[in-house]
Amino acid sequence: MFSFEIIAIDGNARAGRLITPHGIIETPSFVPVATQATVKSLSPRELRDIKAQVIIANTYHLHLRPGVDVIEKMGGLHGFMNWDDPLMTDSGGFQIFSHGAAKEHGVGKIASIFPEEQDRGGHLSSKKGRPLVTVDEEGVMFFSYLDGSQHRFTPERVVDIQKKLGADMILVLDECTSPFHDYEYTKMAMERTHRWAMRSLEAFHRISDKNQALFGIVQGGAFQDLREKSASFIAEQGFQGFAIGGSLGRSKHDMHTVLEWTTPLLPDDRPRHLLGIGEIDDVFEIVKRGIDLFDCVTPTRMARTGTLFARSADRFRIHISNERFKEDPCPIEKECNCYTCRNYSRAYLRHLFMAKELLGIHLATIHNLFFMESLMKQIRAAIIERKFEAFKDEWKVSSVALQAKTTMSLQ
Amino acid sequence: MFSFEIIAIDGNARAGRLITPHGIIETPSFVPVATQATVKSLSPRELRDIKAQVIIANTYHLHLRPGVDVIEKMGGLHGFMNWDDPLMTDSGGFQIFSHGAAKEHGVGKIASIFPEEQDRGGHLSSKKGRPLVTVDEEGVMFFSYLDGSQHRFTPERVVDIQKKLGADMILVLDECTSPFHDYEYTKMAMERTHRWAMRSLEAFHRISDKNQALFGIVQGGAFQDLREKSASFIAEQGFQGFAIGGSLGRSKHDMHTVLEWTTPLLPDDRPRHLLGIGEIDDVFEIVKRGIDLFDCVTPTRMARTGTLFARSADRFRIHISNERFKEDPCPIEKECNCYTCRNYSRAYLRHLFMAKELLGIHLATIHNLFFMESLMKQIRAAIIERKFEAFKDEWKVSSVALQAKTTMSLQ
Repeated sequence: MFSFEIIAIDGNARAGRLITPHGIIETPSFVPVATQATVKSLSPRELRDIKAQVIIANTYHLHLRPGVDVIEKMGGLHGFMNWDDPLMTDSGGFQIFSHGAAKEHGVGKIASIFPEEQDRGGHLSSKKGRPLVTVDEEGVMFFSYLDGSQHRFTPERVVDIQKKLGADMILVLDECTSPFHDYEYTKMAMERTHRWAMRSLEAFHRISDKNQALFGIVQGGAFQDLREKSASFIAEQGFQGFAIGGSLGRSKHDMHTVLEWTTPLLPDDRPRHLLGIGEIDDVFEIVKRGIDLFDCVTPTRMARTGTLFARSADRFRIHISNERFKEDPCPIEKECNCYTCRNYSRAYLRHLFMAKELLGIHLATIHNLFFMESLMKQIRAAIIERKFEAFKDEWKVSSVALQAKTTMSLQ
Repeated sequence: MFSFEIIAIDGNARAGRLITPHGIIETPSFVPVATQATVKSLSPRELRDIKAQVIIANTYHLHLRPGVDVIEKMGGLHGFMNWDDPLMTDSGGFQIFSHGAAKEHGVGKIASIFPEEQDRGGHLSSKKGRPLVTVDEEGVMFFSYLDGSQHRFTPERVVDIQKKLGADMILVLDECTSPFHDYEYTKMAMERTHRWAMRSLEAFHRISDKNQALFGIVQGGAFQDLREKSASFIAEQGFQGFAIGGSLGRSKHDMHTVLEWTTPLLPDDRPRHLLGIGEIDDVFEIVKRGIDLFDCVTPTRMARTGTLFARSADRFRIHISNERFKEDPCPIEKECNCYTCRNYSRAYLRHLFMAKELLGIHLATIHNLFFMESLMKQIRAAIIERKFEAFKDEWKVSSVALQAKTTMSLQ
């Protein structure tokens, strides 16, 4: 039911076709995030309109609400959310990190601020009140952020939950470390993540009906020998795809370096997913380093605050609430063919955001996702024509990437 | 550019066709409310999908934000909001009432609570702080609820603003009285509203390009002689349509009585619009009394709180957040053909509302408006077949209408 073929290679950038039981994904592809079984504010017909090929929902959030049994009874996640196309589920590893080490260290997947103190123990606590997360060999114990109830995730349980959710591609449970964890802790967590990976595969083979593919996750923080060791180990376990998890270092430059250590060690014939990264400048840098799939909340989250993608703007974004758009009759982007740009002026969009009208978020989300999908199509075409670097230069990305030192925000 | 023909009459209920420069409206018709140039959460393509024939925007709100000049520059309201079908604008009279007498009396268009004191003066103040509204012969002075800036509406100015907005059907400025205004005040305000009506017509004839129709508004509170006097007076002024404004009394029963005094005095060959009324049980009662058009925020507002129209439920509504829908695989309404009911379970909708996901509001709004449009189609067909009363009986409306004593909420 699954296959992946490389259509073209340009440098380390790859154009491919990933065939899944719910359809074909042309790679490299952006994966819009549907954390709670919905890509925020959009219905599936709008997702199809913007040519989204695959979306990713979240095991951790859906386990807590509405509960996996409810979703299973509704025909799995595809039926529940009325999405018939390819679908992934994240394992919940990153969310456990969010409520544990990330809170404690005040960081995301990439850090740009220095910590007041570093965590060296396996006990990841939140900054305030009782710890929300405890990691041990067996798995993870955590408290619900919704009602305080206690939950246990093990590698086997997470495979089982994802089996019930029924996405095409599922991910192993991993322990995401913080950029401020030291070498020893990162190594210990990586080795545990490797043991969890093997347990996940065993559980998967026990219950697999060939309609799902299990992706392994490479860890190892921003330490070269750990990343190489992790990539080599995970590469050998027979996963149908690979994901690269955080920590990815303390800057975007670190993230690029981590990818350069990692992707060459992964099998060429399997898809590679970068978890939780994807601003416009990132897209070029990660595709250049051999990434086929990536998901990120940035396009949808920015849309909700009126931050809209625009090719010629500083950092590829405009803030639509700005006074200068008050009487602007132009669409967000003249060249953009999305529903929003085909039908609405910046003046109208600004009005909707000023008036706090929900349609503003809706139209902004359509634009940002379409912009991303359209960029990915162009990047793919450039790879196929062996013109990826020239296309990247056209977008003048490099200077932007060097300036940007944003901390990735937590989901 | 405008014409109205009656296709069928059943009792006092009428089925008609209202032809406007932007298309035909088959009446009786519900008019979804687009206060700030958007029917909350929906794009025009979704409005077309649910078969909305006409929508109504608001002069008062659009004057304050983004300002009428901005909208005029964007091609008028049709261009600004990307709506090519029939469009109305309300005059702002009701919003001035909202910020004046309604606040002071703690009531809406229909009252069900007794007032602590009644207002007898022309000075309508809000309960707290400085008065927001002052009515005099010339017009209305009010302060913006957005930034405190001072504004003047006169009958002429309101026609001029609506000319710039460019809706197909526009309304005269009126003074909406409260159910707790006494006879003397209501009479005085009605007579002033009549003088304003004549000034509005004069201004309209001065600037009209035949692409707009001006509707007069009948006032007179819940006093029979005043309503009759107002209906007769407004009927004679040559308006292309008529609206019936509040106060409509202290109960739904009062509202029905007001309609019974009013509609027989209006010309048969012009459309009649009831302003701001339209719960499911109301629909039958007002159509029965000769209303052709009506607008109400109820369907969209209820949608935003997860209150969904359902034919067989108590008061024609269910609360989707209710625990009993947690694992309910059925659509909201089995017979409903809206996008939401064709694609989603109650369980999924409940999940979206519990998780505060915007798609929940979006799908709920689609359902409630489709339900209303679909009901109107069935009512129209019943009138044409001279089976209106039988159809009304099928819906078991009467008992509901007698029970309901809701105060209409303010926009």
